[in-house]
Amino acid sequence: MSTGSPLLGDLIEALRCLPGVGAKSAQRMAFHVLERDRAGARRLAERLALAVERVGNCRRCRGFSEQDTCVFCASPSRDKHLLCVVETPVDQLAIEQATGYCGHYFVLLGRLSPMDGLGPKELGLDLLAARLAEGEVEEMIVATNPTVEGEATAHMLSQLARAAGVKATRLAHGVPLGGELEFIDRGTLAHAFGGRHTL
Amino acid sequence: MSTGSPLLGDLIEALRCLPGVGAKSAQRMAFHVLERDRAGARRLAERLALAVERVGNCRRCRGFSEQDTCVFCASPSRDKHLLCVVETPVDQLAIEQATGYCGHYFVLLGRLSPMDGLGPKELGLDLLAARLAEGEVEEMIVATNPTVEGEATAHMLSQLARAAGVKATRLAHGVPLGGELEFIDRGTLAHAFGGRHTL
Repeated sequence: MSTGSPLLGDLIEALRCLPGVGAKSAQRMAFHVLERDRAGARRLAERLALAVERVGNCRRCRGFSEQDTCVFCASPSRDKHLLCVVETPVDQLAIEQATGYCGHYFVLLGRLSPMDGLGPKELGLDLLAARLAEGEVEEMIVATNPTVEGEATAHMLSQLARAAGVKATRLAHGVPLGGELEFIDRGTLAHAFGGRHTL
Repeated sequence: MSTGSPLLGDLIEALRCLPGVGAKSAQRMAFHVLERDRAGARRLAERLALAVERVGNCRRCRGFSEQDTCVFCASPSRDKHLLCVVETPVDQLAIEQATGYCGHYFVLLGRLSPMDGLGPKELGLDLLAARLAEGEVEEMIVATNPTVEGEATAHMLSQLARAAGVKATRLAHGVPLGGELEFIDRGTLAHAFGGRHTL
């Protein structure tokens, strides 16, 4: 170890569990918090320990929650007729932050990927089918990623919805806002062209 | 808060105490550790708490240490005749990692900056003078940064060394390895030109 303090060396090594943090960033973070923000570091240590200990998955939507039922599922003000299906909790957060969506969620915690051992069972589709069978959901918004696996997952979800007599919708594909046609990949451009609508 | 779990929201907010971590990175980190690396997060929480609690400054060199005397100062195998003076603990680490230096260090924990209330006393120059007066140090290597404040600090350090009858040296300035002359700033190039040596 090349610091004068073994504990500091241990901290630098542990910081590398964070995504995008390499050797240099870990050093910078460790020195920064010790030199300038010990209160912040103490708070981070407490919250990290607490979150790791307590945050599990919501019984109803499989999103992150420290309660049996998450804040979204427990909220009486959210629309019970809408159910948005996402791959991961971070996608759920992205939709929540970007859109005015105020319905419920269902988190697959993955995408259909038989090679990785992720099938209908792992994605909780039995739970989702039971949820649709309750009869409250009128529209299921399929918000899986536009990747090969995400599309396969979306296809399977649409079949599930059809079986339950629920309308299934998919996020629109097209030119991203602020994007320039010149730099957009062909697939997206073809999609946007095919899906053009009247002005 | 727009996650389904308040504890997760707290964690995201706390992660922002790390340098270079904004709202998006903090989200990504929080979701990553909860989804994929709870063991790593638990270890990080422990080590962070421990480092914040225990790591102080070495009595002798002012570098980081959880002991009264840091690993470097306590090492019997390091050369007592060499003393390298740096501004911060992170500079100490940089020298330790990049060079084969095996002498002792003295950390100023800042640079001369009267505007910020950093004078000789704050930089521990009395401690440094006492160290030089012990008579063991033969060469004091001044490794402050090549900034205006760093140069002023270096100047003061050289006076201190002269008063103690100790030889003071300064890191060489010049063209960085791999740098191209075309893109090097004028000051550095002028320094390198003036300091040319025989091949």
